[in-house]
Amino acid sequence: MFTHQKALQFTAKPDAPDPAFARRFQEVLGGKWGEMTVALQYLYQGWNCRLPGKYKDMLMAIGTEELSHVEMITTMIDQLLDKPGAMAADDTTGATQASEYGAQNPQHTIVNGGGAYPHDSNGVPWSGAFVTASGNLMADFHLNVTAEMQGRLQVARLFHMTDDQGVKDLIRFLVTRDHMHQMQWLSAIEELKADGLDDIPVPEAFPLGEEFEEFDRTFIQASDGAQATDGRWASGPAPDGRGDFRSAVVQAHGQEPELAPGDPRLYGTNPLQETKGLIGKAKDALK
Amino acid sequence: MFTHQKALQFTAKPDAPDPAFARRFQEVLGGKWGEMTVALQYLYQGWNCRLPGKYKDMLMAIGTEELSHVEMITTMIDQLLDKPGAMAADDTTGATQASEYGAQNPQHTIVNGGGAYPHDSNGVPWSGAFVTASGNLMADFHLNVTAEMQGRLQVARLFHMTDDQGVKDLIRFLVTRDHMHQMQWLSAIEELKADGLDDIPVPEAFPLGEEFEEFDRTFIQASDGAQATDGRWASGPAPDGRGDFRSAVVQAHGQEPELAPGDPRLYGTNPLQETKGLIGKAKDALK
Amino acid sequence: MFTHQKALQFTAKPDAPDPAFARRFQEVLGGKWGEMTVALQYLYQGWNCRLPGKYKDMLMAIGTEELSHVEMITTMIDQLLDKPGAMAADDTTGATQASEYGAQNPQHTIVNGGGAYPHDSNGVPWSGAFVTASGNLMADFHLNVTAEMQGRLQVARLFHMTDDQGVKDLIRFLVTRDHMHQMQWLSAIEELKADGLDDIPVPEAFPLGEEFEEFDRTFIQASDGAQATDGRWASGPAPDGRGDFRSAVVQAHGQEPELAPGDPRLYGTNPLQETKGLIGKAKDALK
Amino acid sequence: MFTHQKALQFTAKPDAPDPAFARRFQEVLGGKWGEMTVALQYLYQGWNCRLPGKYKDMLMAIGTEELSHVEMITTMIDQLLDKPGAMAADDTTGATQASEYGAQNPQHTIVNGGGAYPHDSNGVPWSGAFVTASGNLMADFHLNVTAEMQGRLQVARLFHMTDDQGVKDLIRFLVTRDHMHQMQWLSAIEELKADGLDDIPVPEAFPLGEEFEEFDRTFIQASDGAQATDGRWASGPAPDGRGDFRSAVVQAHGQEPELAPGDPRLYGTNPLQETKGLIGKAKDALK
Amino acid sequence: MFTHQKALQFTAKPDAPDPAFARRFQEVLGGKWGEMTVALQYLYQGWNCRLPGKYKDMLMAIGTEELSHVEMITTMIDQLLDKPGAMAADDTTGATQASEYGAQNPQHTIVNGGGAYPHDSNGVPWSGAFVTASGNLMADFHLNVTAEMQGRLQVARLFHMTDDQGVKDLIRFLVTRDHMHQMQWLSAIEELKADGLDDIPVPEAFPLGEEFEEFDRTFIQASDGAQATDGRWASGPAPDGRGDFRSAVVQAHGQEPELAPGDPRLYGTNPLQETKGLIGKAKDALK
Amino acid sequence: MFTHQKALQFTAKPDAPDPAFARRFQEVLGGKWGEMTVALQYLYQGWNCRLPGKYKDMLMAIGTEELSHVEMITTMIDQLLDKPGAMAADDTTGATQASEYGAQNPQHTIVNGGGAYPHDSNGVPWSGAFVTASGNLMADFHLNVTAEMQGRLQVARLFHMTDDQGVKDLIRFLVTRDHMHQMQWLSAIEELKADGLDDIPVPEAFPLGEEFEEFDRTFIQASDGAQATDGRWASGPAPDGRGDFRSAVVQAHGQEPELAPGDPRLYGTNPLQETKGLIGKAKDALK
Repeated sequence: MFTHQKALQFTAKPDAPDPAFARRFQEVLGGKWGEMTVALQYLYQGWNCRLPGKYKDMLMAIGTEELSHVEMITTMIDQLLDKPGAMAADDTTGATQASEYGAQNPQHTIVNGGGAYPHDSNGVPWSGAFVTASGNLMADFHLNVTAEMQGRLQVARLFHMTDDQGVKDLIRFLVTRDHMHQMQWLSAIEELKADGLDDIPVPEAFPLGEEFEEFDRTFIQASDGAQATDGRWASGPAPDGRGDFRSAVVQAHGQEPELAPGDPRLYGTNPLQETKGLIGKAKDALK
Repeated sequence: MFTHQKALQFTAKPDAPDPAFARRFQEVLGGKWGEMTVALQYLYQGWNCRLPGKYKDMLMAIGTEELSHVEMITTMIDQLLDKPGAMAADDTTGATQASEYGAQNPQHTIVNGGGAYPHDSNGVPWSGAFVTASGNLMADFHLNVTAEMQGRLQVARLFHMTDDQGVKDLIRFLVTRDHMHQMQWLSAIEELKADGLDDIPVPEAFPLGEEFEEFDRTFIQASDGAQATDGRWASGPAPDGRGDFRSAVVQAHGQEPELAPGDPRLYGTNPLQETKGLIGKAKDALK
Repeated sequence: MFTHQKALQFTAKPDAPDPAFARRFQEVLGGKWGEMTVALQYLYQGWNCRLPGKYKDMLMAIGTEELSHVEMITTMIDQLLDKPGAMAADDTTGATQASEYGAQNPQHTIVNGGGAYPHDSNGVPWSGAFVTASGNLMADFHLNVTAEMQGRLQVARLFHMTDDQGVKDLIRFLVTRDHMHQMQWLSAIEELKADGLDDIPVPEAFPLGEEFEEFDRTFIQASDGAQATDGRWASGPAPDGRGDFRSAVVQAHGQEPELAPGDPRLYGTNPLQETKGLIGKAKDALK
Repeated sequence: MFTHQKALQFTAKPDAPDPAFARRFQEVLGGKWGEMTVALQYLYQGWNCRLPGKYKDMLMAIGTEELSHVEMITTMIDQLLDKPGAMAADDTTGATQASEYGAQNPQHTIVNGGGAYPHDSNGVPWSGAFVTASGNLMADFHLNVTAEMQGRLQVARLFHMTDDQGVKDLIRFLVTRDHMHQMQWLSAIEELKADGLDDIPVPEAFPLGEEFEEFDRTFIQASDGAQATDGRWASGPAPDGRGDFRSAVVQAHGQEPELAPGDPRLYGTNPLQETKGLIGKAKDALK
Repeated sequence: MFTHQKALQFTAKPDAPDPAFARRFQEVLGGKWGEMTVALQYLYQGWNCRLPGKYKDMLMAIGTEELSHVEMITTMIDQLLDKPGAMAADDTTGATQASEYGAQNPQHTIVNGGGAYPHDSNGVPWSGAFVTASGNLMADFHLNVTAEMQGRLQVARLFHMTDDQGVKDLIRFLVTRDHMHQMQWLSAIEELKADGLDDIPVPEAFPLGEEFEEFDRTFIQASDGAQATDGRWASGPAPDGRGDFRSAVVQAHGQEPELAPGDPRLYGTNPLQETKGLIGKAKDALK
Repeated sequence: MFTHQKALQFTAKPDAPDPAFARRFQEVLGGKWGEMTVALQYLYQGWNCRLPGKYKDMLMAIGTEELSHVEMITTMIDQLLDKPGAMAADDTTGATQASEYGAQNPQHTIVNGGGAYPHDSNGVPWSGAFVTASGNLMADFHLNVTAEMQGRLQVARLFHMTDDQGVKDLIRFLVTRDHMHQMQWLSAIEELKADGLDDIPVPEAFPLGEEFEEFDRTFIQASDGAQATDGRWASGPAPDGRGDFRSAVVQAHGQEPELAPGDPRLYGTNPLQETKGLIGKAKDALK
């Protein structure tokens, strides 16, 4: 169960409105790697977690914190839209210069009346498909690591797209928390291993005897880039400790596919004989 | 530039048609974590890679291999649909029992005439938003690790949903390659670090002096789960080697947000005085 | 800022797993009118609210409560999936009968490993486009009324689709809260009017003098249904108190549209003379 | 069955092309609350209406009228694109200034060759999910009220974003019809009540005895906003006439959720003992 | 401007309800190639047509007819849902057998209360992206041909999925109109050519002198399928009358791409020297 | 199976960066009619083709070639983004003028760090729904014709939106191949007919005796445009050689639809008697 208090987790106050930056800041609110995604992803992983205890509790803690980040960014965007800028190409009453007319998101004014919404920096709606909660914590914690990396990357880029100190302060807070959260997930991955809950390859519990040994440590070269095998992914010990990497040029081991004719009731293109028979029957029926 | 040969990378031949499994197998073809995603994700990462050499070459190699996986799964689904099963609830001519009528994907017959398509197991279309190529290899390789884990997890689950040995063989091949590819990305992450190209926190080049030290190693407890701080993410040395984790109960450090009234031309709900003035003026205009 | 406690707002415990009902219950979690929508819609309306005080505070209260509903339904679906039912058409080890194989959502097992997700009952992802926060509380509170009506309608229907007393109890709780929330929004609409903040037509502040009087109370009959004017929307006093409704058969008051030829650089189909000239010039260029 | 005449319902002629405004005007054509939505929503509600007579006939009348609005806005956008403006950043032949280059929708030229399409002001396609026809007229008429409010709000905002008198005239017509249609749906709601077809709470026919009385009139305070209970939604008589509103601080009445371990064939993270057993068995299988 | 009459263009009455077929019939209502698409596509092509006269008038005629098809299919689906079938797995009161429980679309009951909606046979919403109106009639009429072919194919397949004579009669009507409409668009293509408005290649007005002659009639073999050049697309006269087809094995004519390092403010992975410099500077800043 | 070589099929090198054009060029990469669509559409048609031989082999050849086009356009966009232009409205360090700030796609910098992605010119993700592989080659080849026409139209338009000779050269290559591919598909249609595999109406094998003769050659006039019947689609011989076109004013041949009351458990709006009974019973239950 959730409760809310009005004060924000961290200060979110711009020095001045900036509708063009408001549009850009939507990316880390409602984009694929924005705060909506991590908040809901961690919460769904926590709710669905079938292992009681520290992992489940930790997921609920961080998911709830991320909700507070959604709130801060929304509040910031609202203030960046405090005056919506030029409403028209020749508007002289707007708080910002007419050049912003082209740079702003038209839905911020027409649809939201000067407010944020769960869409990305191009106005594409956030999608529930951005959330992954697979039931396997090892797989999901690796996703969470990259989510915090992609997120930190995006706010680091945004840091250079504004000179507003108020905005920069909030970005600095977000950069800091993304730093912490990268370390949190990396540590949680170590903990999962130490607890014997999973390991490489994930899922560890799938019987390795079902694998084809010929392909389990082989880097397959399907492009002519000469340096593709120069990394440690193509020779030396593989991370599962079961042997050394190999490499091989890609090769066809399978059949040339040939499909059976389709059910005539589907009217696909079939070999001539069948088709002719079908059309003949159709024409006979007309006589 | 690409070239193609008709023989498949690995055998893809089911023992018998199974339209219900064909529906399920779509998940690893056109779902968020399916082969369409990894093929295109690795190719876009490779094409966009601004660092010439082994990483770029390796990305092109594996992206091209994954295209061959798309082909194998498509070919397999086509054969699972060789006879589309019952066409109607009371169909007695279908190759499989009427119970399949409810379990199959209706678009497999109505739209595709017995063929695969880039949609997931519920028929939702594959989306370009599934692809991430951030320009930062460290962030993206962590995504690639989880992609191979989510992928291996899904085919491992599908392994138990069929008794068809032909299908199981292809799944075993996919499980094996996902095993290899997990190791490949983990090794590439190590290589990036060894080459000094990036490190934790990602991106390493963003000046740490901009971060707020109070928050950079603090696990924030925003839920009442008592065990949330029992993992190595809340105490002991943090992975960036700059100090120990801390923990703290979540606290509000920011303002209670209060927004300025909106531009009257947006007709939002503003404080009474302004609203009244606006309505009064509108009514005056009517006299 | 949000905080979370592990205990749920209301009991969410089914008597037994039921994967087919789990699929259906997704509708009120991740469908257009599900709990994800109302939670986030009320929160965005609250965050964006430019009028400090009771309306903003109320929005934050109910938005936060709805988050707890998201949590309860997610938890319920997880338990309905405690045993995922038949994994395959001929599975004899599943907890439920094989007929469920066709009725369940394949992503519940393949993707989520037995967990809920922010998608609807057909597996289509929740969309940020479902949230509306227009900045005008009168318009939005009317949306909130219908959201609670659509929501209550859906859970009332689901009530008859299960005999599980645990599930029915949670549904009864949701039905009750939707009842309360319908009344809450209807009361808030009255309060907005009493406070003089807006009225019919919304937005009241737009100058009525700009309207065309001929069309402002006229029901226009564009279909031949004889009873279309038998309701109080076509005669008698109109709700804005400015006169009586009228009705009229639909009539064309505008021009027959004729568009100018397009820019030749766009290669659209233009009147012959222009097209010929363009093709002539192209052919000349080849000589 | 539909018929069409070429003359428009109302004049739709701009004084001059304006590609940037054409982009914005798309919102009320193909946005969530645009004319595509109301036209198709009313038609689907009418077609699906299981009560013959005035409501069904009225829905068909207004749905058909809204189709004519789709046509007028499309025609207007086409003319706003009569000259597509600057085709390139340095184009000196375009009818409008180069600054429009950034403000226009690139698909208007590249894809449509100077024509409108069913997308919103950011180019996101219209979605069938925008249409709701629940089968319950009371719930749907409340949606229709807000649709006309959101629509009138958006065109009222657009009114201030152009100085073109031709465009303003069409907007004035739309504002007027949205005024009328708000009143139409509010009157239809009254009629439904007077006819005894439904009432608050919707659906009235669901047995109230199934509700939990403790929660049916209680405003639950889940945020610390002190004024949240200052409205008539938290005290005084509730609109269903069955008693007074109450208020209470949010409280947990449910269990702390604990989920059963998952099916081992799904390879989720389960309690250690089970996981170990599974991995052990897998490893044994390899010996 | 549109008008509507209640009588349908053709009879739409099933012999009996059939919720499972109702789900399937949604494909030709709200699928990519369904009646929603053709109705709106032809109307948008007509509205946007910049050439007054027969083509524009014809587009409006057929677009309007297709709206009446949308209406008929909606009406048919409504009746197929007259009794929603089993509401639950163990329902004994439903009009149809329990096996339909799995085959029906859950939203038909939960969301629509027994009504049709603009979604496909898997419940995925119709998208405005399905409509193309390019401004070039030659390109669009070829799309319209395939739309009628895809449509006729789908209803022909559905014809075999039901034994209900009422449903079959409506399908027969649709099959017939799709036959007519295929011929209509093929004739319109001939007319466009005869009128000199466009020709192969489309758009004819683009100066051919800008093309690379080496590639303008060459079939490029990028796969090893030996029979790929056995058709008239690889030898003999090409349809534009400018020469014979040729064929060639695919060959690389371009550079090996090498990209410049990215802007350091974007924190992408750049060559080591630059990266090191950047990290060094960041570390210096911390001293 | 696929293989890749690093050299491109054709040179893809701009003279200078141009982020605004990079945004526009995305349309022919990730838009509905872009290279992603044709590459994957031809491959899926080839994979699913149930007729072995020349058609299947040809599809694989052209699908593979189109993959190489995806690669070239991606590479071109990357270079157009070599310097991302102004990062902020007042940035003086960017390579291009500040006016580009509004014209560029913010995700190119924030999300991709200066790289292309599978989205259209407005940033809307590519969709798997863009691919059609119906199983019927005649229907699909007509789609392929229009795909090449829409594609050539779009690149022809883009040709006029840039003065960069490097970009223009790639566009000229694409225009040329689209010319060739239009001819390829038109020839393949002729070949299908010559081979007796299908004909007008598609699918030819559906028994014409099931059609209603009254409607099979009749142009139906549902709009008042006087010239709608002036084309060869309304009189003279029809392309199927079975008679002459006719025309007729649209007429209603069907019933006025009246639907049965819905299942009371769905709480739709039903005739009064049934509704009253239901509410009465609900109220009785409360006594």
